[in-house]
Amino acid sequence: MFVVLGIDPGVSRCGYGCLSGGVGKQPTVVAAGVITTPPSDPLPTRLAALQADLQGLVDELRPDAVAVERVFFQVNARTAMSVGQASGLALAIAAAAGCEVVQYTPNEVKQAVAGYGSASKEQVQRMVQSLLGLAERPKPPDTADALALALCHLASAPLRARLATPGRGSGR
Amino acid sequence: MFVVLGIDPGVSRCGYGCLSGGVGKQPTVVAAGVITTPPSDPLPTRLAALQADLQGLVDELRPDAVAVERVFFQVNARTAMSVGQASGLALAIAAAAGCEVVQYTPNEVKQAVAGYGSASKEQVQRMVQSLLGLAERPKPPDTADALALALCHLASAPLRARLATPGRGSGR
Repeated sequence: MFVVLGIDPGVSRCGYGCLSGGVGKQPTVVAAGVITTPPSDPLPTRLAALQADLQGLVDELRPDAVAVERVFFQVNARTAMSVGQASGLALAIAAAAGCEVVQYTPNEVKQAVAGYGSASKEQVQRMVQSLLGLAERPKPPDTADALALALCHLASAPLRARLATPGRGSGR
Repeated sequence: MFVVLGIDPGVSRCGYGCLSGGVGKQPTVVAAGVITTPPSDPLPTRLAALQADLQGLVDELRPDAVAVERVFFQVNARTAMSVGQASGLALAIAAAAGCEVVQYTPNEVKQAVAGYGSASKEQVQRMVQSLLGLAERPKPPDTADALALALCHLASAPLRARLATPGRGSGR
């Protein structure tokens, strides 16, 4: 089995979703949730708390791979800054733990999970629910996005493994 | 004595400068340099290396305060992203170590060190040299910027201490 931890970075809300999957099997949810930090705390304190929680997740779940949403700076420079800081923590912690670390754009995730890059949040949530066979739609959206990141990586990992090791079949 | 570590965040080059200072004394340089990560490595690997090096600096120097340059996203969104990620690491590590953590804008630093907010890089380097009584101009610029951040904090710390504890004099 291959364990993937998806992380939707953010300082106020950081979604995470961990899946265990194998070739030809429906992935199962190992853990999913949201790390929050209080807006009343100073930013450095919030980043330190997020760092500790992310480190705890990686230590506990021991993922083979960590998929982090790739952040862009088009929209809101103030939010983008803290999202960038949160993504830096996630990428550093995952790499330090020896995980394979991959970033996907929101469009790549939507493409992989819902079949087209401009799918709505709700469509992504429904597809995540369906692909994982969940009784309810994953909430909040941060969790659904993190699970979608993990799904996106699970979908592309066998292909990349085949490309990396020609003739070795569909990878681990 | 009050130990301040200034950090000019960046993934390719992260400047640091550590000063020890007291009221009415010329600050002395405890450590100064640049952490670099190889551009040929994947970003997560570089961030993990930076995280380890910054953690090592904080563990070794045990600063009372860490002053980090506040990053903005006007110029180059691609560079700004990695600078934001590096600043996130610096802020989280400093806060987790129990340091006072402060961010200063480049203008605030120039104002504090050179007397006006639009001073050139070279003017800042010369003022840092002069204020610290150094035989040579601090190089590279990342190191000078980090020392300037620490100087900026040393200059404002006594004032803030007085404001925080009225009647207690000029603070530690």
